[in-house]
Amino acid sequence: MESPSKTNSVTYSTTGRLSISGPLVRLVAVQAPPPSLQDNTGDLDRLLRALAPELPGPIRVPFPLLGPVAARFRLAGFKGTAVVNDLATGPELADFLPAPPPVLLPLMALDLGTTYLEASLVDGLSGKVLARGHEENAQGRHGADILSRIHFAASAGGLASLHQDVIGSVDRLAGALADQAGLAAADIRALAVSGNTTMVHFFLRLDPYHLIREPYIPLVNGPGPCRAAELGLGLHPAAVVWLMPGVGSYFGGDLVSGIVATGLDEQEETAMLIDVGTNAEVVVGNREWLIACAGAAGPALEGGVARMGMRAGPGAIEHVTVDPVTGEPSWTTIGGAPPQGICGSGMIDLVAGLYLARVIDLRGRLRPEGPGSRLVETADGLAYVVAEAAAGAGGQPVLLHQTDLDALMRSKAAMYAILTTLIGQVGLRFEDLDRICVAGAFGRHIAPRQAIVLGMLPDLPETVYRPVGNSSLAGAERALLDRRARERCLEVVRRITYLELNVNQEFMIRFSGSRFIPHTDPRLFPSVPVFER
Amino acid sequence: MESPSKTNSVTYSTTGRLSISGPLVRLVAVQAPPPSLQDNTGDLDRLLRALAPELPGPIRVPFPLLGPVAARFRLAGFKGTAVVNDLATGPELADFLPAPPPVLLPLMALDLGTTYLEASLVDGLSGKVLARGHEENAQGRHGADILSRIHFAASAGGLASLHQDVIGSVDRLAGALADQAGLAAADIRALAVSGNTTMVHFFLRLDPYHLIREPYIPLVNGPGPCRAAELGLGLHPAAVVWLMPGVGSYFGGDLVSGIVATGLDEQEETAMLIDVGTNAEVVVGNREWLIACAGAAGPALEGGVARMGMRAGPGAIEHVTVDPVTGEPSWTTIGGAPPQGICGSGMIDLVAGLYLARVIDLRGRLRPEGPGSRLVETADGLAYVVAEAAAGAGGQPVLLHQTDLDALMRSKAAMYAILTTLIGQVGLRFEDLDRICVAGAFGRHIAPRQAIVLGMLPDLPETVYRPVGNSSLAGAERALLDRRARERCLEVVRRITYLELNVNQEFMIRFSGSRFIPHTDPRLFPSVPVFER
Repeated sequence: MESPSKTNSVTYSTTGRLSISGPLVRLVAVQAPPPSLQDNTGDLDRLLRALAPELPGPIRVPFPLLGPVAARFRLAGFKGTAVVNDLATGPELADFLPAPPPVLLPLMALDLGTTYLEASLVDGLSGKVLARGHEENAQGRHGADILSRIHFAASAGGLASLHQDVIGSVDRLAGALADQAGLAAADIRALAVSGNTTMVHFFLRLDPYHLIREPYIPLVNGPGPCRAAELGLGLHPAAVVWLMPGVGSYFGGDLVSGIVATGLDEQEETAMLIDVGTNAEVVVGNREWLIACAGAAGPALEGGVARMGMRAGPGAIEHVTVDPVTGEPSWTTIGGAPPQGICGSGMIDLVAGLYLARVIDLRGRLRPEGPGSRLVETADGLAYVVAEAAAGAGGQPVLLHQTDLDALMRSKAAMYAILTTLIGQVGLRFEDLDRICVAGAFGRHIAPRQAIVLGMLPDLPETVYRPVGNSSLAGAERALLDRRARERCLEVVRRITYLELNVNQEFMIRFSGSRFIPHTDPRLFPSVPVFER
Repeated sequence: MESPSKTNSVTYSTTGRLSISGPLVRLVAVQAPPPSLQDNTGDLDRLLRALAPELPGPIRVPFPLLGPVAARFRLAGFKGTAVVNDLATGPELADFLPAPPPVLLPLMALDLGTTYLEASLVDGLSGKVLARGHEENAQGRHGADILSRIHFAASAGGLASLHQDVIGSVDRLAGALADQAGLAAADIRALAVSGNTTMVHFFLRLDPYHLIREPYIPLVNGPGPCRAAELGLGLHPAAVVWLMPGVGSYFGGDLVSGIVATGLDEQEETAMLIDVGTNAEVVVGNREWLIACAGAAGPALEGGVARMGMRAGPGAIEHVTVDPVTGEPSWTTIGGAPPQGICGSGMIDLVAGLYLARVIDLRGRLRPEGPGSRLVETADGLAYVVAEAAAGAGGQPVLLHQTDLDALMRSKAAMYAILTTLIGQVGLRFEDLDRICVAGAFGRHIAPRQAIVLGMLPDLPETVYRPVGNSSLAGAERALLDRRARERCLEVVRRITYLELNVNQEFMIRFSGSRFIPHTDPRLFPSVPVFER
């Protein structure tokens, strides 16, 4: 084979140092001969001439920079450092520093999520990760979910307020990251943003009205770059803000970012990427083709819908085992804190365990005739006591209600239906997949085995499943440091086929078939025991 | 010969209709299929996709335009007209019109002079000249000459005031041109500016401090384009402002413009371009090489220095004959109005005639012993009465003082010295010149024969001399309509050699030798009679 395929590894920043190959921002040391009667080139022209060996071809100079940069170049004795952005439309002068190149070039990568922002600060010179952090999206005060925020955006001053909220959140996060690294936010010279399409609209103060109205069209999928000052961000005013392009209203830059981060678009082998947030977004493909879809599979797994559901964070029950004979649970929480709720991975563990212990039946219904004595009647109906009041945070028990179970069953059915519809669309079987990358907290925390037991993920060897962490953030980091990664983002958007599930008849049939544990057709899950009703 | 040389004709706008080949602004009719579930491309991406057949490759979208343009495109039903600027750094979206392409695309060409602004309004679709006009440069209130304005710029608020003045003048001129064409200034979609380096600095609000301090370095020679709104101009806010690049502090975009307008840079034959304003700027060259210099030869020819000197305009004596026997003058004025003063061409006619009638000697001194009786003693010394008080405007006579004659002698000596120094520099003789283009009012009005008699211009057949009008404005018009002309401007700047006369020893020697009529070496002017002292 001529071109050996690359290993499918996500190079996100937990590795501590990232490779650099054509960063978004370049520092170019320049030293021009001082002007003379024999060399009367203008100051700015002199700077551009000095840059020509490094950057042949025209360099765009934004008009507001023209005078200040030329004057600073002269004042610095015609030597110093040019800051140049490498954009798809060509190089653009961003700044001139009257000093030799600094030893650090702080660039910020941002995963702009509906609920949380996650970010890292990387050094554009060494690739070193300088800081990582997260921050709540302050837009939450206008609604936890995207839909309510889009409605709020239509009210007087609504869009401006949502824009201000997210800009404020980014600024706080930038400040915190800079702090960690002993820097100021104004030292940050670039921001690469990877987010879902709605969040990117709010971030750019673009009207999201049509995003939720058939046929669900964004104002823009591939917004060009702008300067931090144009958005009112508290980074360096000339910092370039680069936006990961998206594919559609329900398939944003965050997933494009994940595709590039996992290398799905470059590999010979066919692989799958699953990103579960509010929606489940799934891509299948290789270097020849890419197909994707998105569907509402997430809520029960992300917290917010399940009554005791919560995001993976301190006090969340993340792993559960259920004694198959007694139906008694044992669990661990993140950070070892008293349990406050259950995160997605804990929920999957729990429900899979309850099924194997026959505390619930194959329809996901609590069985009063099942083993153990942890079922209680509450005002909201039957519930399973995961943690008793005495053990729970604030003396509150952690309960799993039948309604939570119902929500999970819908989510798991939706997920499996999405996966089968997508794989069926390209005439493949799950066995044809080289690997399945599972992104985000979901991927980091779930045990694939338990998800298989539930019939949520296909019955494949566990080694096929690869947690890839926050691949949206990892892609933003690549975009900051690697020109080819930026090009690949645009290529992915052009190449990818988006399968619309809202109007997909096959999906609805598959969804119905997936509402049993593990499935109405148990032959699809040979490794999972099937119990009589 | 493989490539026959073109004729040296200036295609400036007096011809009524200009050729178009890659205009600075393009209107592109677009019609995109409306979005659907099967085609969920974003609104802006849809617009860019619709432009791709016409404009392949990336199109820059200025960030402030992103939202408004996308929204208007949708509102217009995904059809209308894109306004796209063709820039050296690539195409840039300027606007979107929710209508089919208009039948007129008004573009403005401007010769930004120290004293006067001259402009034309051309149609970017047909090449038709819609209007022409001129306007005083309001900066005049801060000094008639460049030097005093540069000093004023250094005072508090000085630069801002000069900038406002010139912007105001451009706006008034734009309004007047638009009026003539039955349009509004806000309909104008582009402005190409050709001016001397100082005027361009003021226009862009750039500090001119170093322009007049050795080694005379501009802040910028080749400023990139900007938008009208960025300069506060009252054209269409998105109108692109394109600036003719210059070569140095004393060799501005106006002359580069003239080179391109006259085709000096494209011809096989060697030709010369002379542009006399406050300075005399001279270029010699062909498609292989170009060399230029500038010197202070103009003042006596441009009005302002000669006491009775004035710009070529109504009431200016433009042609004079002097009876060689009686020394009596006869003259015509521009517009036939009573004479107010003498313009450059009238001055040359007059002094040549006075020499041939022996009213002045070969040193340019009034000869009381000469013919006629028109010499009078005034408080300011001896003077020749060109027009008597009874004939003059406001009952004032038009007099030629000895001091005016001295100034003219210096100017003519400087001019000839410039020409000989330049031609000597490239090892040519004047006879090697295919033609000599004489730009501006000077070129339009002077009789080359009289300038030859004075020893101001070389003794060549009159047919060699070609008046080329306002070639600075003509070049700006070419830049608006012709991509190749815009490219040639940048090439000229790169190719041209600038000869600095301030430090040129040879020039000083030649200057001294040129202070006789016609010259200390009369063999250089075989056609001019030489009189004993």
